Amino acid sequence: MDGSSHAEDTWTVAGRTFRSRLIVGTGKYKDYAQNAAAAEAAGAEIVTVALRRVNLSDPSQPMLVDHVKPDRFTFLPNTAGCFTGEDAVRTLRLAREAGGWDLVKLEVLSNTPHLLPDMEETLRALKLLIADGFQVMVYCSDDPVYAKKLEEAGAAAIMPAAAPIGSGRGIQNALNLGLIIEQSKVPVLVDAGVGTASDAVVAMELGCDAVLMNTAIAEAKDPIRMARAMKHAVIAGREAYLAGRMPKRLYASASSPLNGLI
Amino acid sequence: MDGSSHAEDTWTVAGRTFRSRLIVGTGKYKDYAQNAAAAEAAGAEIVTVALRRVNLSDPSQPMLVDHVKPDRFTFLPNTAGCFTGEDAVRTLRLAREAGGWDLVKLEVLSNTPHLLPDMEETLRALKLLIADGFQVMVYCSDDPVYAKKLEEAGAAAIMPAAAPIGSGRGIQNALNLGLIIEQSKVPVLVDAGVGTASDAVVAMELGCDAVLMNTAIAEAKDPIRMARAMKHAVIAGREAYLAGRMPKRLYASASSPLNGLI
Amino acid sequence: MDGSSHAEDTWTVAGRTFRSRLIVGTGKYKDYAQNAAAAEAAGAEIVTVALRRVNLSDPSQPMLVDHVKPDRFTFLPNTAGCFTGEDAVRTLRLAREAGGWDLVKLEVLSNTPHLLPDMEETLRALKLLIADGFQVMVYCSDDPVYAKKLEEAGAAAIMPAAAPIGSGRGIQNALNLGLIIEQSKVPVLVDAGVGTASDAVVAMELGCDAVLMNTAIAEAKDPIRMARAMKHAVIAGREAYLAGRMPKRLYASASSPLNGLI
Amino acid sequence: MDGSSHAEDTWTVAGRTFRSRLIVGTGKYKDYAQNAAAAEAAGAEIVTVALRRVNLSDPSQPMLVDHVKPDRFTFLPNTAGCFTGEDAVRTLRLAREAGGWDLVKLEVLSNTPHLLPDMEETLRALKLLIADGFQVMVYCSDDPVYAKKLEEAGAAAIMPAAAPIGSGRGIQNALNLGLIIEQSKVPVLVDAGVGTASDAVVAMELGCDAVLMNTAIAEAKDPIRMARAMKHAVIAGREAYLAGRMPKRLYASASSPLNGLI
Repeated sequence: MDGSSHAEDTWTVAGRTFRSRLIVGTGKYKDYAQNAAAAEAAGAEIVTVALRRVNLSDPSQPMLVDHVKPDRFTFLPNTAGCFTGEDAVRTLRLAREAGGWDLVKLEVLSNTPHLLPDMEETLRALKLLIADGFQVMVYCSDDPVYAKKLEEAGAAAIMPAAAPIGSGRGIQNALNLGLIIEQSKVPVLVDAGVGTASDAVVAMELGCDAVLMNTAIAEAKDPIRMARAMKHAVIAGREAYLAGRMPKRLYASASSPLNGLI
Repeated sequence: MDGSSHAEDTWTVAGRTFRSRLIVGTGKYKDYAQNAAAAEAAGAEIVTVALRRVNLSDPSQPMLVDHVKPDRFTFLPNTAGCFTGEDAVRTLRLAREAGGWDLVKLEVLSNTPHLLPDMEETLRALKLLIADGFQVMVYCSDDPVYAKKLEEAGAAAIMPAAAPIGSGRGIQNALNLGLIIEQSKVPVLVDAGVGTASDAVVAMELGCDAVLMNTAIAEAKDPIRMARAMKHAVIAGREAYLAGRMPKRLYASASSPLNGLI
Repeated sequence: MDGSSHAEDTWTVAGRTFRSRLIVGTGKYKDYAQNAAAAEAAGAEIVTVALRRVNLSDPSQPMLVDHVKPDRFTFLPNTAGCFTGEDAVRTLRLAREAGGWDLVKLEVLSNTPHLLPDMEETLRALKLLIADGFQVMVYCSDDPVYAKKLEEAGAAAIMPAAAPIGSGRGIQNALNLGLIIEQSKVPVLVDAGVGTASDAVVAMELGCDAVLMNTAIAEAKDPIRMARAMKHAVIAGREAYLAGRMPKRLYASASSPLNGLI
Repeated sequence: MDGSSHAEDTWTVAGRTFRSRLIVGTGKYKDYAQNAAAAEAAGAEIVTVALRRVNLSDPSQPMLVDHVKPDRFTFLPNTAGCFTGEDAVRTLRLAREAGGWDLVKLEVLSNTPHLLPDMEETLRALKLLIADGFQVMVYCSDDPVYAKKLEEAGAAAIMPAAAPIGSGRGIQNALNLGLIIEQSKVPVLVDAGVGTASDAVVAMELGCDAVLMNTAIAEAKDPIRMARAMKHAVIAGREAYLAGRMPKRLYASASSPLNGLI
């Protein structure tokens, strides 16, 4: 009976509706079999596909699609490894010709050790892709002003980094993330920076629509178990957000002059 | 098939084994029916019973046991509202005579607005109860030195407060909590201070055996939904702890002189 | 003898060298007399001047320069209240004609309640100002990628916001701030978001060259006393940065398996 | 004019009045000369003396008092290295006989790697010392209930640990510290756990009367410079506390539904 009294809780991006709010990556796992098992344990309905990193077409090598099956998961092609708008646009056009994908994830990274997104190039590439008919979910910094620009340019979803990709540091700036969620009319997904289950819960408690992660699962000591942890984490955070948390107080009974200080 | 490859994950206190790692309270809900529904949604196997606050024996009034059924839940009588060791001992002796309970939760609070536990009185009461044959789970401060004294005196479980009861502030001192978990041979449960799902996840990620909460569920806008959130939160945190998280880094590729500063 | 063994610690922007690392604002005080007293108590050598908000030229009204004297402080004209690059450029050109100022602070804000900087407009305006011969200190987001673009475009200093202007929330993203400091060859100043003395210390401990604040002083209950607090705070943070802090440990004697978790 | 309008800000313990709010340790420095230089640079008026660790009486070895001069500093003998109340009492009685000191600092540590204070032993030792006529400043955990017991037993000052001694982790539990400050009628000093200048500022901003530190200065790369940083830090935090900080907001202009979440 758990939850039967609640209407089903879904989210919709570019006209497609999903129940799972956890998107997982491909390409960092021991092999495609482990990748598929992790996606399954995570309860994911969408997997991102790093077009430049996974084998989609060479049958003499292990192929992603033999394990992570396109009839089970929505594939979200991304532009991981692209450092210019042109690179990104070229990559996604090829993907569309090859696989018919037009719902895509744009990421244009700065060519630096920290690999943070280059927002100037990202916005430029987004405009090219929109003009070309793509539906574009956009990886971005947590700058609310740029998030607004992306939405106004036609982004299908805003995907701010919680922390540098692969850092596992969790949400660095809850304030900026909250401002983005408050202002956005398209879905907001935290992408990059999640390190463990509580990070995903915090993102969902802030009101994100979904969370995307890769390293946190792939580099856990037991990736399948961490995938399952993350499935529960995203549900926990979503339900807590919808349930409406109790207020924080100094202690149960009282207000106090300490309230302003602590 | 999710998780079928893992042996069942249980915990044991005073010789009793449980699968659920979420213990919920009684007595702060709108009515006993809501209380029972929340305990059910939480997947709890144990409920604490504030002996001085719930009606266990007057059939002319609504009775807890008509809703929260003793054949479904293990009742854990507690001494909420006791400010001296004598009070606590007297309360639990009466409970044992009336209900046969000998697994109990001791709490002796300071008679102050913040209601933090009085550890001197708590240790004294614990020794009296142990001598009297009780099996005692002990609510306590997060002081690792006192936690050790409690264990040496025979506590069946150590239950440190994460924050003042009813504050909803989450874990104030992860370092002390970690030291308690590291040193304890009996189960450690976070008790008091949880405000939302992420707080429970953090407690479990630190390696707690279970979490006890009352206000976080009872005072949520939708208590049943929050109870369900907490069920998932405790599983998420436990699984993440067992899965072994990825390391934190500044960014994916590198160490940096910033490591010592940030 | 306190400190006499150390060479004087100064910083240089656009060829001008300063000893004080605390820059204060103008325009939010009860009156210009209080403003001047605060700047004095802060030990400031530079004050920012909001060209659109202070009276520089109408002798029938109280004038800033009668209290905050140009022979005592370096005036740093800023573009507070400008929401487009054109606005900002026009404002600074007028200032240069009127006052001869060519070291300026550029800020182009988003026209939103949170008033975060608009980096696209800011970079565009910066290029116009550089071409026009200005030396430009640039208020910006804490995005390290954009900070790099500003420096490459010729910014004389990078001035990231620690938090939304007027929020008093302190440093939201120490990681991004650290990355900016690490990569920058021009001075980095934290600007906006400081609320109390410890915020300024944290900024300096990260390695900032200086801190700029306005509301934290002007809206303290005792602005002059807070100005003095900030003077000491900036020195404390700078000296601690140069002194090289002790490492963080779980406790004095030991490493522990807890190290990765807490 | 800096500060001239304010009455001198002092604090008083056991009838003795001090201007400096920074107490430093002895015994962890390269040599007594460096120790003395650090105490001087810190502007300290009180130094703690670990009776079991410094040489006070053997003229064939370097002696503390030849460098850190008793006519310049108030010596505060402490019981560092004592693990029982009896040990502590014996140590302080010997000190009184030898040096005439009756204002002392009591610390009774748990004999564990983390060396956190043993509050049961500490309270017992305090009562013995009070009965014996000592004036006792007491190192303790951050448990507000035990802090109250210490005060009621006659402690001259309450000195909670911010974090384990030698950890350099800063204030772990600002809430407990705030509760102690709020309830105490005797001075409250943060003792142990300070790692860098901002930690000391935060302690003072909470309303502590003073801060005691040892490792943070002695183990900095440049101890003298860090001592000077700490002098400014304690002043900064004290002045900010007295000045009354601005409120925290999400952003300058507005309240927002985000207020409860972030």
